[in-house]
Parts: sequence; C-alpha cells; structure tokens
Amino acid sequence: MSSNKIIETFLNPKSVAVIGASKNPLKGGHRIVDNLVTNKFKGKIYPINPNSDGELFGLEFKKSVLDIEEDIDLAVFYVPNRKIPKILEECIQKGIKGVIIEASGFEEVGDKGLELRDQILKITDNFRKIRIMGPNCMGLTRIDGDSDAEDKGGFFTSFAVFYKYKRGNIAIISQSGMLNGGYLMYLLEKYPDLAIRYSCSIGNKMDLSETDFLEYFMDDPTVNVIAVYLESFKDPRKFIQLCRKMKEKIDKTIILVKGGITLQGQKATSSHTGALAEDSQLIHAIIKQSGVIHANNFHELFQFARTFSMMYNENKNLPKQGNISLITGSGGAGTIVADITAKYGLKFPNFSENAYHSLLEIFPEWMPPNRFTLIDFWPAMEKAMMNNTNPGDIMKTVYEILIKDDKIEGILQMMFCSKRWYSTNYKQLAKILNSAPKPVFFWLIGEIEEVERVSQLMSEHNIPTFPSLEDMIKNFWILVQDSKNKNKSYV
Amino acid sequence: MSSNKIIETFLNPKSVAVIGASKNPLKGGHRIVDNLVTNKFKGKIYPINPNSDGELFGLEFKKSVLDIEEDIDLAVFYVPNRKIPKILEECIQKGIKGVIIEASGFEEVGDKGLELRDQILKITDNFRKIRIMGPNCMGLTRIDGDSDAEDKGGFFTSFAVFYKYKRGNIAIISQSGMLNGGYLMYLLEKYPDLAIRYSCSIGNKMDLSETDFLEYFMDDPTVNVIAVYLESFKDPRKFIQLCRKMKEKIDKTIILVKGGITLQGQKATSSHTGALAEDSQLIHAIIKQSGVIHANNFHELFQFARTFSMMYNENKNLPKQGNISLITGSGGAGTIVADITAKYGLKFPNFSENAYHSLLEIFPEWMPPNRFTLIDFWPAMEKAMMNNTNPGDIMKTVYEILIKDDKIEGILQMMFCSKRWYSTNYKQLAKILNSAPKPVFFWLIGEIEEVERVSQLMSEHNIPTFPSLEDMIKNFWILVQDSKNKNKSYV
Repeated sequence: MSSNKIIETFLNPKSVAVIGASKNPLKGGHRIVDNLVTNKFKGKIYPINPNSDGELFGLEFKKSVLDIEEDIDLAVFYVPNRKIPKILEECIQKGIKGVIIEASGFEEVGDKGLELRDQILKITDNFRKIRIMGPNCMGLTRIDGDSDAEDKGGFFTSFAVFYKYKRGNIAIISQSGMLNGGYLMYLLEKYPDLAIRYSCSIGNKMDLSETDFLEYFMDDPTVNVIAVYLESFKDPRKFIQLCRKMKEKIDKTIILVKGGITLQGQKATSSHTGALAEDSQLIHAIIKQSGVIHANNFHELFQFARTFSMMYNENKNLPKQGNISLITGSGGAGTIVADITAKYGLKFPNFSENAYHSLLEIFPEWMPPNRFTLIDFWPAMEKAMMNNTNPGDIMKTVYEILIKDDKIEGILQMMFCSKRWYSTNYKQLAKILNSAPKPVFFWLIGEIEEVERVSQLMSEHNIPTFPSLEDMIKNFWILVQDSKNKNKSYV
Repeated sequence: MSSNKIIETFLNPKSVAVIGASKNPLKGGHRIVDNLVTNKFKGKIYPINPNSDGELFGLEFKKSVLDIEEDIDLAVFYVPNRKIPKILEECIQKGIKGVIIEASGFEEVGDKGLELRDQILKITDNFRKIRIMGPNCMGLTRIDGDSDAEDKGGFFTSFAVFYKYKRGNIAIISQSGMLNGGYLMYLLEKYPDLAIRYSCSIGNKMDLSETDFLEYFMDDPTVNVIAVYLESFKDPRKFIQLCRKMKEKIDKTIILVKGGITLQGQKATSSHTGALAEDSQLIHAIIKQSGVIHANNFHELFQFARTFSMMYNENKNLPKQGNISLITGSGGAGTIVADITAKYGLKFPNFSENAYHSLLEIFPEWMPPNRFTLIDFWPAMEKAMMNNTNPGDIMKTVYEILIKDDKIEGILQMMFCSKRWYSTNYKQLAKILNSAPKPVFFWLIGEIEEVERVSQLMSEHNIPTFPSLEDMIKNFWILVQDSKNKNKSYV
C-alpha cells in the first residue's frame, strides 16, 4: 500500500476498534471513545475489553476484535504494553490495516522496552502485516467541521476530549503527545482563531513517522501550514528532501520546533521518546538545509502557525524586503518597536512625497509626522479632537495613505481599544485592512473587554492581533523569511 | 530643598492645581481631575481655566492660581505649550513648589521647542524658583490602597483614569507616558497581581530625572522593585553610582528597558523625547556597570517586576547556582524546558539518594523516574489512578521530596488544570509552596476557567504563574542573575 494511502486510512478510517475501552471515566480508553462519540465520528466504533460487558455510550462491548463480523480499518490500543503482542496478533488475524499504540514503555525505558519492540517487529514482519502509529503517542485528530457545526464528524483518538475547535488549514505533526492532548485542547479554547485540520501525535515512531505525514500533507489541498515538533529525525535526508519540495509549493509552509538541541535537552528526549542523541551541529544543518521556519518553543510554533494560516486565508503579498510602517499612539512603544525591528532586520523606509503630503494635512503644524514610516498618531488625534473631527476618520485616512504607498510592505499598529474614550468603527476598519494587499498586524491594549472584542473581530477578518510588541514583530519577520525561501507571494 | 524632599512634594502633595481643567470629557485636563476625584485624593484640588465657570466634579473653577487664597504645593499643566511661560510665572508668584508639564512640543520638535525651553530656564532661574516634571509626560501616580479600598486616597495625575489597581511594592520610572497611561491601565486590569506603589512619567526630564526618583526610592521602604524605561541617561555616572548603591540594599531590585539601543531606535527617540543619540557600546557599558536586570521590552519589564515583587513579598532564598527541578506531565514539554534552561545556564542536578528512593515508591516499576531532577509525573499519576490513590496526594508527596532536597534551588512546574479530569487541592498546595523556602513557578494550561482560577489563587500566595514555558524559565533566570549581583537572599 502506498504511503499516502496508508496515512489516508489512519486519518480517515471507516471503522475503528478501541481496545482497552472502559466504563471508568478516569481511564484513557474511556475518553478515546468519548472523544469519538462527542465529536460525531461518522464511521463505526467498536469498544473492546475482555473484562467489560454491556455498553459504552450506547455501543456494545466486545471481548476481542475477533468477535466483530464487519471489517475494521483501524485499532486504537489503550492497554498496558505487556498485553500488546497478543492483541496485535489478533488484529493481524482480523485483517486490520493499522494500529495506534498509545501506551508508553518502549525505547524510552531501556532493555525491557527494546525486547517488546523486537517482538512487535517479528509479529508484524517488519510492519508488512500491519502498520503502526506510536507507540507512546496520543493518537490522531482530523477536524472536518467546527465544534458547533451540526455535521462535524471528524476523527478524534486523543484521550483528551476536544469540545471546542475550529476547522482550518493547519496540520500538526508531533513527538509530544500534549500537542494532540491537553495542551492543544487548551490552545483551541484560549485561541479560537487557531484553526486546525489535523493533529498527529507520532510518539516513538516505531513505524510511521514525520516523513509519511509530510508526504501526505504535501498533496492535501486542505493543508497550508504544517507545525512540526520533533525530538529526532527518522530519516534526515528524506526530511530535507520533502521540506525542499514543499518550498516549491506556493500554498505550503512548514514550521519546526526541534527538541533535544542541547545536551540537557537530549538527556530529556532519551527518557521521553527514546530518541538517540543527535549532534547539535547536524541538527542546525538539517534545519538550515530544509529551509523551514524555525520556532524556539511551543508558544512560537502555534503563534507562527496561526499567522501563516491567516495569511493563506487572504490574498496577501508577502513582504520581501522587510519594509514596514508602524502606527503608534505612544512614542515609547515606537522607540521599542524601532529597536526590536532593527534586531530582526526590518526597516522603516521614507514616505513617498505624495504620502507625506497627505499625512501633513492631518497632523498639527507644531508636531509634523516623521519623514520615515514610523507614525506617532497622537498629535493627529489631538488635532482631530480640537477640530471636532472623528478620530476614527483620521485612522481611516492614515490607513488609506499607507496602503497606497508601494514602498510599505506591511503595517504594524499599536491600538488602544476603549469604549470610554473614543470609538473607532472597527468593523469598517477590519474590512478595509482585510481587502488590503499587504499584511496588517495589531498589538492591542486598552480595556480588556474591548480588547477581546476587537481581537475577535480582527480574527474573523484574518487580521492577527498579538499580546506583545515583540510577538507582533517576530511574526512579521517570519513572513519575510518565508517569502525569501519561496520568493513568491501567497496569491 | 533636598532632592528627596522635592520628590516627596511631587509624589505626596497636600494640594494641587489642575491648569487646563475642562468640562469636556475628551480633554486631558478633564480626565486628570476625574482621576484625582475617582481615586479619592485626600488633598485639595483646584480646577483652573480662564474660560470656564461653575464647577467640575463639585469643585469650583478658578481663572488663575492667583485667585486661590490657600497655599498650593503642586500644579499640573494640561495646556498648549505656548501658554506655559505666562502660567509658569503666575505659579512662581503664587509660591507653588513644583509643576508637572504634560504638554509636548519641546526638544522633540526642534528649534521652536528649544526656544520655549530656554524661556522656561530663564523664568525659573534654572529651576531655582520652581521645579519641573516633564514636559511631554503623563504625570505621576501614587497608590495608597487597592482600588476597592474605602480609604484608598492616592495621587493620580495621568489623563488615563485608573479604575482598578492593587497597591504593591513596584515603582515605575518611565520616559514613555503610556507606562503611566493607557498601557499601565491595561496591565492593571489584565494582571490584577501586578501590585504598584508609584508610576512616574518623566517625559523629556528638563529638570527632574530618573536619578532623583532612584534616590527617593532607595530610602522608601514601601518600594522593592523599580521598573525603569529610559530613552537617554541624564547623568550616566550618577545612574551607575545609584544602581550600585541599590545593589547593596537587600530589599531592592532595578529592572531596565533602554530604548534607542539601535540606530533605528535612536531615530525614533529623537522624535519622541528629543533624546540625543547615545553610542550603543556606551549604552551597553552603562547597563553592565550598573548591574541592573536588563529587559528587552515592556512585556519582560512588567513580568520581571511582578516576579521580583512576589519574591520580595515572601521569605524566599534566591537561587545562586541555577539548580532547578521540573515537574511536567508531558515529556515534550520536559525536553523543550531542558533545551531552553540550558540556553539560560540553568541545570538539573541529580537527586540526593534519599529523594530518589522516595520518588521510586510512587512511580511504576516499568517507568522509573530520571536520576536527574526532571520529573515526568504522568506514570506516577497513572499508577495512582490504578491504585485508586488521589493523584493530588502524589503531587503533594513529590513537592515534599523536592522541597527537602537541598540541591534543588527552585521548582518549575507544567500544571494541567482541569475540573473534568481529576481535581488537585490547589489551596492546600498553594499553602505548602508559599511556605517553602525556595521559589516555585508554574506554567498553567488546561480548561481556561480552571487555569484562571488556579492562577489567581497562586497569585494570592505570591506564586507566579506564566503563559508560556519560555517566560517561566526566563523569569527564574533573572532571580539567579539578581542573586549573583547581590550575593544575598531576600530574607
């Protein structure tokens, strides 16, 4: 079976047996079934447990997969690892195509785990008889519709039950279970604009690995952004090859966090996924040659993914030179942005003559704007208020000037959101910025309720907002990086 | 008058005239009076405006300070800058000791602004006749009690009206108005555990500067943490001298963000506070010699300040070697923490024999804990659940072991907060950690509501929680830095 076809079976099975399903809600085997049922998996679900009778969520318990008459595509194991060999043999006998093993206790625990692995290799005839995801993983997730959609019906095999999510264009490949578990659950609730298509916890990758999923996502038009966390490269040469191929694609970006870059980190990985230590120079060389966007931690990984996800959703031209404009209501914020952007190689060009003359008109005489594209709009606001002009109109004018000026590739803004003070027509603004050909990013501060309202509104228009200046700048900088890699816009 | 005495007058006046007070709520002069009244300033307030009659918040308008019979300590100017010379002369005539000038349009706008400055120097006889804060600033704040306290009565001269705050041990000195304006207002609402004593917006520091406030805070026992944002050093030698003197104090820490470190940043400062460009090597030398904690941006500045504020509130021993323990429920998170801590020079020592044997008991045989102090407690949790032991008790045991082991100077934990899954007795835990002699930091994830509840509970016990792994680690690292600077604990 081709690699893409087997991954298709894992991500989109017609029927699944949950081995180790349990009536006890504290057990993982219970929550996997809960997750499938809660999220309306449209295929068949078979709870399997030799010690259970009756039903679970209205589904009848079976003692073994061999008791099921219908064909089964996939089995999910949530059983102690010593029980795996026997059950695996039954699965092969049943003709099941793939198994997700969520138990740990393999390479990462030394000799005993290695013995078990060898046993599995023998039983499966080196994975010729059946394919394996994991072990030591948290399953797979495919999101077909938002969590509040009537016909959502995705595929959820994490033992963290997902209640709130939005379907989108991001795929996750991870050697940390929490990226398809509690942490992802948390992110989906906290950042409702993080729109996910797949999350794949690959664990110790005894058989299937990151490269199988990368290959699959390369041809999947529903995926634009691939967020990857690895503790080891299963096949560095193939990884580099696939990433480079991905760079040729106009509609794909890969972001990578690599765990175990330091000696201290490698000590941690070996007790986690049993990954063998990799030379840190080699790791850096692989990252560089693959041309992926490198993130330092999970916060960056998901924030970068969200940013790219939004850029792909719109018709944006990516910045190539890093020429930005900043709109700020605070000179101090302007100074810090200027310092941090300099660190990231972003620049403030001078305004074109036309743009500058248009700006002069809205600024007071005693405080003209800068010649370069850092705009402290406070004096313009004060002038507007003195003349009883709506400050929101001034903001609109500033944006029209900046959008027209071709030298400016992207706009960053510090926005103070307040109901008490004055009110901007954010809906109107969001529409203007959404249809602009260049990216616009916001750092929002102000009254919390208003910040949250504006942030959500901007998200709905694919305009990213950030909790800090540095985050805003870093996220703009990765667009420049990606554009240099691809030398293409997203259109 | 001694420097400390004049600062005392500025931060704790008995009476204040607000010149440019206005009935129009869009004007700054209105909001300054609003701020004083809302926050129950206990001294006298005199709204001054030659064009206004009647009352503002029940206070009678006067045309000029000369129309007031009583003595006045301080005047706050919210008037166009061309009107300043005449009003300043009246203030001197009235015997007012100090003036806060919030208007901009001085050094930062070139020749015209410089002329005005020279005029002021002449009128005040080089500040012999009256002392000046600003210009181009957002006033001063002194917090005497929490915003919901009956007898709060602080002093608030920002034109951002503060509604929600907590009195604490942090003092801010800033050349960016927003740190006593909209941004601070936002932070106080968003992070209720950010406990502030003073915020001083020093603007262009024509007369009084950062060093005057540093001197004052040195002797003020209510201040432990001084968060500073500067675009220039008024007197680098004195700054270094004061910072070094502060290091001798057991109960003080200074954190500095310096704007205008890059050429691009310096271009921005010159249009903001009119600061002259400083050589970037010189800046770095000043930062190094002063021995302050250096923050890169406002997010770090306030997060670091909060961390130190909490450490000073408790009886914690500061880490000297950087020897930490990590408790994680995710091996992936453990790996990333191990990598990032390595970058910051933090280390995981090996457990003492006693500690290791106690840990072995709560871990399953097939998955013993690491010999070094990185604990993936998931297997211990699973064992507890299998044995029907409360996982919360396991957590308590782990903490008791880590607190006892002297090699470990601090504990970091990734904590998954959930009502659905199992429930930890957080109150009990917070009490144990609060009374531990070493710092304990949390990265919280899980169900949003539960995360917020636990975060608040921990805050109340001065246990800081963080939104990301990297933030948690960076904030621990600055404790090591500060302890090396001081070679002392906080007790």
